[in-house]
Amino acid sequence: MSEKEISIGLFGFGCVGQGLYDVLNQSQSLKANIEKICVKDSSKKRKIAMSYFTYEREDILRRNNLDVIVELIDDAAEAFKIVSAALNNGLNVVSANKKMLAENFEELYRLQIKNNAALIYEGSAGGSIPIIRNLEEYYDNELLSSFRGILNGTCNYILSRMELESKGYQEILSDAQSNGFAESNPWLDVAAYDTLYKTILLTVHSFGVVLKPEMVLNLGIQNITFDDIVYAREKGLRIKLLGMGYKSNGGFHVYVMPHFVEKTDELYNVIYEYNGVEVEGAFSCKQTFVGKGAGSHPTGSAVLSDISALTYNYKYAYKKLKKRINGSDQIAGGHLLDNDFSIRVYIRFKDKAELKGIEIISIEEEYRSSHTNYIVARVNLRSLFMLKGNKESKVFVCAMESIRES
Amino acid sequence: MSEKEISIGLFGFGCVGQGLYDVLNQSQSLKANIEKICVKDSSKKRKIAMSYFTYEREDILRRNNLDVIVELIDDAAEAFKIVSAALNNGLNVVSANKKMLAENFEELYRLQIKNNAALIYEGSAGGSIPIIRNLEEYYDNELLSSFRGILNGTCNYILSRMELESKGYQEILSDAQSNGFAESNPWLDVAAYDTLYKTILLTVHSFGVVLKPEMVLNLGIQNITFDDIVYAREKGLRIKLLGMGYKSNGGFHVYVMPHFVEKTDELYNVIYEYNGVEVEGAFSCKQTFVGKGAGSHPTGSAVLSDISALTYNYKYAYKKLKKRINGSDQIAGGHLLDNDFSIRVYIRFKDKAELKGIEIISIEEEYRSSHTNYIVARVNLRSLFMLKGNKESKVFVCAMESIRES
Repeated sequence: MSEKEISIGLFGFGCVGQGLYDVLNQSQSLKANIEKICVKDSSKKRKIAMSYFTYEREDILRRNNLDVIVELIDDAAEAFKIVSAALNNGLNVVSANKKMLAENFEELYRLQIKNNAALIYEGSAGGSIPIIRNLEEYYDNELLSSFRGILNGTCNYILSRMELESKGYQEILSDAQSNGFAESNPWLDVAAYDTLYKTILLTVHSFGVVLKPEMVLNLGIQNITFDDIVYAREKGLRIKLLGMGYKSNGGFHVYVMPHFVEKTDELYNVIYEYNGVEVEGAFSCKQTFVGKGAGSHPTGSAVLSDISALTYNYKYAYKKLKKRINGSDQIAGGHLLDNDFSIRVYIRFKDKAELKGIEIISIEEEYRSSHTNYIVARVNLRSLFMLKGNKESKVFVCAMESIRES
Repeated sequence: MSEKEISIGLFGFGCVGQGLYDVLNQSQSLKANIEKICVKDSSKKRKIAMSYFTYEREDILRRNNLDVIVELIDDAAEAFKIVSAALNNGLNVVSANKKMLAENFEELYRLQIKNNAALIYEGSAGGSIPIIRNLEEYYDNELLSSFRGILNGTCNYILSRMELESKGYQEILSDAQSNGFAESNPWLDVAAYDTLYKTILLTVHSFGVVLKPEMVLNLGIQNITFDDIVYAREKGLRIKLLGMGYKSNGGFHVYVMPHFVEKTDELYNVIYEYNGVEVEGAFSCKQTFVGKGAGSHPTGSAVLSDISALTYNYKYAYKKLKKRINGSDQIAGGHLLDNDFSIRVYIRFKDKAELKGIEIISIEEEYRSSHTNYIVARVNLRSLFMLKGNKESKVFVCAMESIRES
């Protein structure tokens, strides 16, 4: 609990970086100072004095007066280089880069142990919701059985506006892009890659299981139509893109998919850019956390909280992971992931040929009309991998139950 | 992060104590052992071996092999003796006794500092919701502006059942008493004393302001009638007993009162024995935490999490309190509490004489009938203190807006 001023080396000065700068300036109790900011574009006008900026990574990494490196850039490969180098220099790091973290988790875990340096990343999942630290700390001694969450503000914003304004996907997406709620290339958000990365991080901190992004199914909302919204509305349901993880028969089911949720569901009223996460433990029962999932200041405040935590030597204990690997080097947990199970889904399609490859176990309902068709069926989850990141397919899949089944 | 087994001296083996015992037995990663349990009734049959039990406080306090004292008894005065003695012996203490904590906060804070011992109490507010630690840790560097919460499971259970089953207060209360959701003497719950104590604890951890229970207004649900439920229902509202705290003009408004909440409110769907807390920060915006508010296992798991936290030397940093008192001895924060403000309320009464003493600033609506009357009016909050803990009055007061106004 030192009272000295903390020196920060910052990478990136985009939305979250600037949010951090604002939050830091108005913080009452944390004495922290951004020493230097590394950005890539030297021609860009900046809101603060140019003397803050450098364009060379090493200019920050080689300084020996820094207490913490804060990595807030977009490029995951470059971010990984920065974070690894910083950890190897024995520096503590705060990051909000879920893609970089999810893709390189095993290596990043090893680097933390090897260098006895901390890497913390509350801003990487759930925006302002303190979900990672809560999973890590509070559910430490709990028989945690499941998590499920709305983890992507852009998708939730689009889904909410489609439903509440009765509009189509393209119209709302374009509007979201023009007002800053969606990227000009929205693929990582709408195809559920962003949710996938966050789900992988929650799986580590919920169960101590480290998975690779390619192992886990992610189906997005890129093919949703207003017909799907109408289907949900008629049944009093809402469509939410959920990342899920739960225990099943000694293994784990982890996947990302749109889900119909009921009015009484705690996540039903989590709308627009809000995120919500529900965790369930054997003793604490269901707990729900709701907060702004994106944006400059909410994420900036999560990053600031991490910086603050480093001042009292906080690091993730990774107790569940350590317990699972039990001193061995077998960090990868892919063998614990079970993708071979049946799940009840709604599938909307134009032509039955589009369903080729999906292993349908039984069909409960079938609807045909001149412009669209759907089935409600029980399918094998693994067979849905053919739709993962598939830019050609126009099929929309939505799980029928947000409560888990196995 | 020691791996040695923790020795616990436990006071009380009621609902929460037994819950802790169960949770501890099934914990995967915490090695903790209950050494001895002090209870008052030596004639009572116990579910575990009698060798665990003692009937003498000193039998536990004088042991020198204990790592932590866990205090889970009902009697606040006796609990204070136990906790003070333990802290003075330099022992770390976990407690869930909100009444004891709220009534003696200043002294307990001094004892922690003087003896350099930790007193942590996550189980005292919000049941299984990790609200105190989140306020303490995560909002540490945040400009937190307000909290409001459903903090009493019994009241929320009664209110939910009255509304959802269209039944009267006495009928539901009797039923709740017979199935264990309400105490045989429900006064502390229904007259909102329990919520008051919890609100006082949240005020300490939100704002660093220490208040005494007698300074803060608490109005309960003991006078609610089915007419009030109907009034709410017709307007699409629900009645929730809320503890609130928020900044206003350099001071703070803190009070406990039933509130009408709207359908879109995150707390609207928090029903039955669930608790919910919403906090609002300048940068993280609104965040909501929902979880089971009461019961043996949820509270037991909160207590276990505290025990676990002590293994890595966790203690509340009380940064906001320390910053406010700035090295002085002026811990009491009553001078920061502002009770002189107007608030829009619904007041149901039988006879206008019952309103005598309430300073009514303006009346917006007035309803009279043969069996009940109500007004919607703006009143001075301080004048409502005449109803605090008033067993004679039959007036029911409900705040019109759960959003703060000042």
